Amino acid sequence: MARTMNFNAGPAALPLPALERAREEFLDFSGSGMSVMEHSHRGKEYDAVHEEALASLRELLNVPASHAILFMQGGASQLFAQLPMNFLPSGQSADYVINGVWGEKALSEAKANASLGGGIARVAGTSGTGEGKEKQYTRAVRQDELQLDGKASYLHFTSNETIHGVQYAVTPARPFPEGPAPLLCDMSSDFLWKPIDVKKFSLIYAGAQKNIGPSGVVVVIAAKDFIERGRKDIPKIFQLRTALENNSLYNTPPTFGIYMIRNVLAWAKQLGGLPAIEKLNREKAAAIYGAIDSSNGFFNCPVEKDSRSVMNVVFRLPNEKLEEEFVGAAKKEGMVGLKGHRSVGGIRVSLYNAVEPAWANALASLMKQFAQKRA
Amino acid sequence: MARTMNFNAGPAALPLPALERAREEFLDFSGSGMSVMEHSHRGKEYDAVHEEALASLRELLNVPASHAILFMQGGASQLFAQLPMNFLPSGQSADYVINGVWGEKALSEAKANASLGGGIARVAGTSGTGEGKEKQYTRAVRQDELQLDGKASYLHFTSNETIHGVQYAVTPARPFPEGPAPLLCDMSSDFLWKPIDVKKFSLIYAGAQKNIGPSGVVVVIAAKDFIERGRKDIPKIFQLRTALENNSLYNTPPTFGIYMIRNVLAWAKQLGGLPAIEKLNREKAAAIYGAIDSSNGFFNCPVEKDSRSVMNVVFRLPNEKLEEEFVGAAKKEGMVGLKGHRSVGGIRVSLYNAVEPAWANALASLMKQFAQKRA
Repeated sequence: MARTMNFNAGPAALPLPALERAREEFLDFSGSGMSVMEHSHRGKEYDAVHEEALASLRELLNVPASHAILFMQGGASQLFAQLPMNFLPSGQSADYVINGVWGEKALSEAKANASLGGGIARVAGTSGTGEGKEKQYTRAVRQDELQLDGKASYLHFTSNETIHGVQYAVTPARPFPEGPAPLLCDMSSDFLWKPIDVKKFSLIYAGAQKNIGPSGVVVVIAAKDFIERGRKDIPKIFQLRTALENNSLYNTPPTFGIYMIRNVLAWAKQLGGLPAIEKLNREKAAAIYGAIDSSNGFFNCPVEKDSRSVMNVVFRLPNEKLEEEFVGAAKKEGMVGLKGHRSVGGIRVSLYNAVEPAWANALASLMKQFAQKRA
Repeated sequence: MARTMNFNAGPAALPLPALERAREEFLDFSGSGMSVMEHSHRGKEYDAVHEEALASLRELLNVPASHAILFMQGGASQLFAQLPMNFLPSGQSADYVINGVWGEKALSEAKANASLGGGIARVAGTSGTGEGKEKQYTRAVRQDELQLDGKASYLHFTSNETIHGVQYAVTPARPFPEGPAPLLCDMSSDFLWKPIDVKKFSLIYAGAQKNIGPSGVVVVIAAKDFIERGRKDIPKIFQLRTALENNSLYNTPPTFGIYMIRNVLAWAKQLGGLPAIEKLNREKAAAIYGAIDSSNGFFNCPVEKDSRSVMNVVFRLPNEKLEEEFVGAAKKEGMVGLKGHRSVGGIRVSLYNAVEPAWANALASLMKQFAQKRA
């Protein structure tokens, strides 16, 4: 069967070469007569995979020696709780910037940290308007809108809001937020989409299932001295220093997930690294936003132009019936994953690294045809 | 290449039919034109996998309607911390039974629970003798040795100590511990090796990477009313009720790991379910213990007979040089994973469900030959 054009928001499309490589050696990894997932996490075969994944990530993102790369579990959602548990001790406060549902969830879990003998979380800025079901996010908070606490333990933000299609650092007009406190970023849905200056961050975390692998692995990149500041009285498994001191092998890691990350990163390097990937990502996004902007309002993207996400393009059609019809027409062409998140409706097009430019172009063509017929 | 005879302690051998099935549909799951790991965890294709895995587990273990089955992350090591966080609130105490290193680790993490606004953990019984590097575990604590706290929040034990080869409920002489408090069991390394009466337990948990799948998934089976008793003030992601209320889909689960579990459970059902699997497991263990007991002391198993593990057989040779030689001789025959855990040395033979009877017999033959030559 032909490969489906997969615009899922995550778990999402993976590069075909990374999948083919995994299939090829699925029953016999590296001539060992065993699947990679049957190998001990302390054996030399898996160790080579683990180290290659770490080295490729360090190379692709140009991660400085000051920062460690960790593989963790539980999704970014677990980190929402685990980061304050580590870095927001009793008597202190942390700043949160909110541009959508994921930022809201991070804040909500951080607030529960007070019950675990920890400090409190506050909002340093939000772009949300309206209340309840009417609540909307159509842009990222600007730097000049932030009300920063000079003594905050850290400043936390979400670089890309998957559901709302709102992203930072796409245009020079909307850079990452900054402040005197250590900067923490949930980069789940736009990790590794372009080069970034890792040094600016005390900690970056990302669920793997968007740009770099299957679900079940969270990548953390953090300054070693920041990790060392964490609470030492909490259970060992929750301390980030435990992962740091044990090279992410304190307990059994999700070995097959890390193996798939290894394959995806090898593909990314072969493609020319992040500058080449950024170029492709911007072209894919330009194709879809172009189809929106040239539709005379048939397609409508609610997001302000300088916060428009390169990873997740959201738009509406004149009514829900037409939206359903559009999803059906796309499905007939072999395109899936286009329905917007159930909380906001409409259409969402996720354009992660492994989404092929030809798929984005095919979708843009379909949009133009559909608008001509139905407008 | 021929399939390697894999006696790893975990991650461990998986059933070849489960692996072959995964390889077969790796690039095109269920005619969808996508890998199963590229599917949304909220789509109908993955949903069928999720539900089949749950249903197979319920059928195989005869899980009553009173109990829920959850898929979680972070390994059993995370549950060491997460269970007290949920079920050991401030002002209360929990009982721990210790038969080896995993029990020790569970206790140590439970002690840190006091720093998270929770209660305290105490030892209700231990079979450990000696101190520091001389510490040994050669049997499971007997029921009449337990000093139970009548008011304990729960009673926790480890049904099989992987490193020490010490297991409960292998013989009628050493059944599972019991008490008035809810019974919690880390069953990581002997989950699903034979039928058990799930009703006896308030909660069972097991890392998947021994008997049922790849690393990265933890299976929890727990009484629903017990889950509901858990603390409500801790972060949502750590509350077991969150997994219960969302059918383990609160956030993105490790979909490919659960898919592999689905395949392994389908194989287990086809094999005749747990009665058939128990019979095979006992035959494999009898082959290895037989080779030990008929060696006139050349091979020496330190574990008392009625605590001898069916899953992990540990033994020593007369000296370390011979142990190394034995591992080398086995390797030449295509057998791997036989080195004992670094903390105790010697030989460890893990005989999980997917280890083929022919492998155990081949190893037993090698042991007899080796003893004849070297004794």
